[in-house]
Amino acid sequence: MRALTLSRSLQFRRDYPDPAAAPGESLVKVGLAGICGTDLELARGYLGFAGIPGHEFVGIVVESTEHSLVGERVVGEINAGCGHCEQCAVGLERHCPHRTVLGILGRDGSFAQYLRLPDENLIRVPDEIEDEAAVFAEPIAAAYEIFEQVDLQRSHSILILGDGRLATLVALAMKAEGYAPTIGGHHREKLSRLNNLGFETRAESDLRGQFDIVVDCTGASAGFARAIELTQPRGTVILKSTVAGEASLNLAAVVINEIKVVGSRCGRLRTAIAALASRKIDPKPLVSQIYPLAEWREAFAAARSPSSLKILLRPS
Amino acid sequence: MRALTLSRSLQFRRDYPDPAAAPGESLVKVGLAGICGTDLELARGYLGFAGIPGHEFVGIVVESTEHSLVGERVVGEINAGCGHCEQCAVGLERHCPHRTVLGILGRDGSFAQYLRLPDENLIRVPDEIEDEAAVFAEPIAAAYEIFEQVDLQRSHSILILGDGRLATLVALAMKAEGYAPTIGGHHREKLSRLNNLGFETRAESDLRGQFDIVVDCTGASAGFARAIELTQPRGTVILKSTVAGEASLNLAAVVINEIKVVGSRCGRLRTAIAALASRKIDPKPLVSQIYPLAEWREAFAAARSPSSLKILLRPS
Repeated sequence: MRALTLSRSLQFRRDYPDPAAAPGESLVKVGLAGICGTDLELARGYLGFAGIPGHEFVGIVVESTEHSLVGERVVGEINAGCGHCEQCAVGLERHCPHRTVLGILGRDGSFAQYLRLPDENLIRVPDEIEDEAAVFAEPIAAAYEIFEQVDLQRSHSILILGDGRLATLVALAMKAEGYAPTIGGHHREKLSRLNNLGFETRAESDLRGQFDIVVDCTGASAGFARAIELTQPRGTVILKSTVAGEASLNLAAVVINEIKVVGSRCGRLRTAIAALASRKIDPKPLVSQIYPLAEWREAFAAARSPSSLKILLRPS
Repeated sequence: MRALTLSRSLQFRRDYPDPAAAPGESLVKVGLAGICGTDLELARGYLGFAGIPGHEFVGIVVESTEHSLVGERVVGEINAGCGHCEQCAVGLERHCPHRTVLGILGRDGSFAQYLRLPDENLIRVPDEIEDEAAVFAEPIAAAYEIFEQVDLQRSHSILILGDGRLATLVALAMKAEGYAPTIGGHHREKLSRLNNLGFETRAESDLRGQFDIVVDCTGASAGFARAIELTQPRGTVILKSTVAGEASLNLAAVVINEIKVVGSRCGRLRTAIAALASRKIDPKPLVSQIYPLAEWREAFAAARSPSSLKILLRPS
């Protein structure tokens, strides 16, 4: 099959062996796959992943031990737990210490014609959700994770730091759930696009004052210190972006102002699919361009460019 | 009056001007004052404080606009708010942006014969609480602050990182409230003392596994990374110590494991006085020695020594 592989650097292969689904797993033909910030980091060596990257996808089940799944259009929970540990027992497979993670840890991902995932990871996509929206299920789930972790109040002043893909999806999720965040970023073009989506935006350098909740979607190590600075005493900073490497930080302000810092990663895909089906969130305006897999160089370059939002790959 | 002053370095003065209480303030004759880790940091230049340090005390009111206070034995809330802002309006004077803080920020402290504080900051000490216990009201309040910030469950596994003053007070508060923390530290002597107080202790290097709650009382910048490492996915790290300066940290684990980090500082002194009055917490075994103020050099050296726990000063 055609696949994009990573081992030190990215490489496009036309002859990569087709994956074989293990018992209890399904084989999925990937329709669309999204490039996310984590993929850009992986490509730079973050987490030392080797294999096929990609964890955002929508596709069709072509083989499965669960026969009713065959032919269904699906998205998939990216974490495959061991099924036996304490975390798996409470439905937190995404924190299983023995987990594999699609395209991130010990499991080939979605930048290929086919991928495999456990049957129970797959979620059917209702017909009314187009591929170009369903492919956002994973990052939308990650955005919705905030509501599961933090007790947000309608009265809270909320700041989203960052104006990229992740910030936009968090903003859309917030809006869908009835919150009115302010978005602060560096890029005029992105801020004006967010403005057009109906959000209140501010140039990062103009941000003043202190918010009850600050969501760090900057993807930069300097984002944390700035987030702390813009948070009320006893307020909450939600860390949404995984930044590779060490950063020099001063934690004294966290203690003195008794700030709560909440790391936030993956969420539940069912929640995202429900939100997409109800049409309260529409991520399609975020799609900047769709590339065939063979044009991955152009696609990755576009994903790195500040002028584009979401870049999708079409492997088949 | 006799006072220990700080301006770059500590200096003992026999001729420091007696403080004059402003309207709405009381003058307190300090009976005992405690040396805390923050004082050791202040002495090294942390926060750039100049004046009389010291924020733990018990004393007798000698002058007050509130006549009923005169002659009373008191402890005091160390944060004096502006009384007009949003934080003060909800009883969080300790987060008022315009606050002064006894012996820490813009207000002379307790390492002197007299100090002044707003009348409403003073809390009467019931007769059954000895001076040697009452002087711990501020750090015990800081330990109790944890219960106000984090929803601890009896089923949670709790680790206290550190074996010094702060760790011991947090451990005593936890025990008083029915929790059974494990304490991990570096110092054999301190750990054996904690053992004698009835706590389960472990050498820091032997600590394994992951706890639901880790309280960082190390006072060291390396404590944070170690705390994160010892915390369950979705667990909570409580930062109890203010460490001066920047530290190099990797926040990726906070995001990946969705850890909650809670900065925790001062608490309510009324809560501490109630706990002391009920005898469910007894800090007196922590007193290593009491020095007259003139012997401040010996006192500070003792407070820095790993073999001592609480060092008190007697200014009068």
